[in-house]
Order: sequence, then structure tokens, then C-alpha cells
Amino acid sequence: MEDENTPGTRRPGGRTARTRAVVVAATLAELGEYGYGGLTVEGVARRCGVHKTTLYRRWGGVDGLLCDALDAANDDTWLPADTGTIDGDLREIAREVVRGFTGPQAPVPSAVIAAAFQSERAAAALRGFFAVRHRRCAVAVARAVERGELPADVDAVDLVRTAVAPLYYRLFVSREPVGLDDADRAAATALAAVRATAHRG
Amino acid sequence: MEDENTPGTRRPGGRTARTRAVVVAATLAELGEYGYGGLTVEGVARRCGVHKTTLYRRWGGVDGLLCDALDAANDDTWLPADTGTIDGDLREIAREVVRGFTGPQAPVPSAVIAAAFQSERAAAALRGFFAVRHRRCAVAVARAVERGELPADVDAVDLVRTAVAPLYYRLFVSREPVGLDDADRAAATALAAVRATAHRG
Repeated sequence: MEDENTPGTRRPGGRTARTRAVVVAATLAELGEYGYGGLTVEGVARRCGVHKTTLYRRWGGVDGLLCDALDAANDDTWLPADTGTIDGDLREIAREVVRGFTGPQAPVPSAVIAAAFQSERAAAALRGFFAVRHRRCAVAVARAVERGELPADVDAVDLVRTAVAPLYYRLFVSREPVGLDDADRAAATALAAVRATAHRG
Repeated sequence: MEDENTPGTRRPGGRTARTRAVVVAATLAELGEYGYGGLTVEGVARRCGVHKTTLYRRWGGVDGLLCDALDAANDDTWLPADTGTIDGDLREIAREVVRGFTGPQAPVPSAVIAAAFQSERAAAALRGFFAVRHRRCAVAVARAVERGELPADVDAVDLVRTAVAPLYYRLFVSREPVGLDDADRAAATALAAVRATAHRG
């Protein structure tokens, strides 16, 4: 079986896994620097030292590289911080969004969000990325339900969406400044709504 | 004074105003069809029948055309619907977002959101557009305060952001499906949070 030549094949530690890691890193670096419009197989090849014919053969092209980079982003072991309360956990989830999109590394994730406007495949990969992220964030909500902080029927993913959406809205829609205070307020608002609905129900 | 040759000069009904109207319409149509990357002065000139040297002289180029189109978007008389309750008004504001970005005309506003990723001037124009939109939506919140539905110290713009942000998040970040039920839920969540905070305060 020629598994090693199939994009997305996971073999941690192998030669293919190492190649994939450098290609993914180069793809994200190129994307952050030049945007989707400036992302080329040649640029990625030059940056990571893997021959472009290898990239074309294994990733197909720019969209294949970008989608694999997004798939790889979920290979990490990221989980929401466990602060002991859902208020703290949700605040941290929201703060990570602000940090990620305003810090020095912001051009990379911002370019990924932008690429989805220009490529259907990138949009689908982004959808997949956030679906996994949502499920991981739901772990914090499940902990809160176990502790009796939230009602058992809370919609965990919707709570997470409500907590982070105003930050993305400021960043990419209304183009307003965004800071950690906005993160704290968005998280508190999302929880206030869930608790109010539970009390009424 | 050569006011007529200054972009953004408002003289409703005059020759300049008519020219501006057809140029703005052509700019938005080109943007919706080809995106920011495919927006050219030549394409706009061809579509509206105004000579490209006129466009270059009065608008400077692609970014000038796009920014003026965004400025012009706020020359309308749009105000949030007055349904008699803040619940109804906020639901309508949220539903308009869903209708605007999922209906047949969706490519135009979506392309404007996308353009802001590629042009600082477009981002600034988008920020200006939403600042005006926010102020207009605040009218509905002021009505609610007058009726005693909401506390006087409610942050009107933040309430509006909370009601619409989850819709933009689904559309352009997590790339999830979005429908009128999502609009209704987002509006209800935003109000529940404001009311819960008021009751505690």
C-alpha cells in the first residue's frame, strides 16, 4: 500500500510525517506573508526545500496544501484551559481568540479566514477545523454541567459560539479594535444568557 | 469651487450625483461578480459606460471606487424595523443579516467583507459603514428604553453586536449553515443576557 504518498496519512515520526510537518509549516508561513492570492507551490517549495514536483504529486496544488495545513492544525492536543469554573474557562477560550488574532502570529490565522472567501475547498477545511475546535471547547461545558454550574441541557457549542463570535465580528466584519476586555465581556454575556434561560425554564 | 470633482461630494439629483450612482452600482456589481481580486477600473468603466480616465481622475483607482461605494451605502434611509417590541426589532435586525448574506444578492456584501482582508482602505471604509449601521440600530434600543423594556444604561451597540455576531461567525469564520432560526436565537440570547445583568444590577 502506498499510504505514505496519500495526503492526510498520519504516521507520526516517520519520514512522511516529517516532510508533511515542514510542508505544513512552510505553507502557513507563506500564507501569513503573502495571503491566499500570493500562495504558490513554488514559494512553498522554496521555503521548505521540498521539490515542487513532490508537492504537486502529494498535495495536488495550492488548495491541497492549504487544506492539509488546516487538517494538520487539528492534530495538536489543544484543549481549553481548566480553570475550575466555567466563567474562567470560557473567558480563557475567548481570550485565546483575541491573543491569536492580535499577536505577532496573527497574519497566519487571519489569512486562513481570508482564504475561505476565495476557495471553496479552504472554506470546507475551515469548517472542519472549527467543528473539531467546537467539540473540544464543549469539554469545558461538560465539566461545568458535572459540577452543577450549568443545566444539563445547555447547548455547549452554541454557548461557545456566543462567547467568541463578538470577537471575530470586531476583527473581520465591523473592523473594530478588540482587546481582552471584549473577550471577558463576551464570555460573561454568553453565560448570563444561558443562566437566565435556565432559570426561566 | 470644483466640488463636483471631489469623490464623496453629495449633490442629490445633479449630474455628478447621477454619475456617482451608476459608478457605485457598477463597482458593487463587478465586486459581487469577480471579487476584490478581479475588480478593475476598466471593468467598472465598461459596465457603467463612464470613461476610465474619468474614473481614475475622480476615484483614483480600485480602492477609491470601493470606498466610495461603501460610503454611498450609508446614504440610504435604512432604519431598523419598528415592530413595537425590542424582541421583535432585534429579531428583525438579525434576520436582515441572514437574508442579506444568503439571498441572491449575497455575493456583493460578502465580497465587501472579503475585500477588507486585502485592502486597508476597504477595511477602514467597512469600519465606517458598520459604525453608522450600529448607530442606526441603537435607535431600536433607545425606543425600548423609553418603553421601559430595557434599563437606561444598556450598551445599545454591544447588544446589537451580540445579536448579529453569531450569524457572521457562522457565515465567515466557522463556515456553518445559517438560517432565520439562528437569527431568532441570537437575538433572544443577546436580550436574555442584557435582562439578566439588569436584574442583578
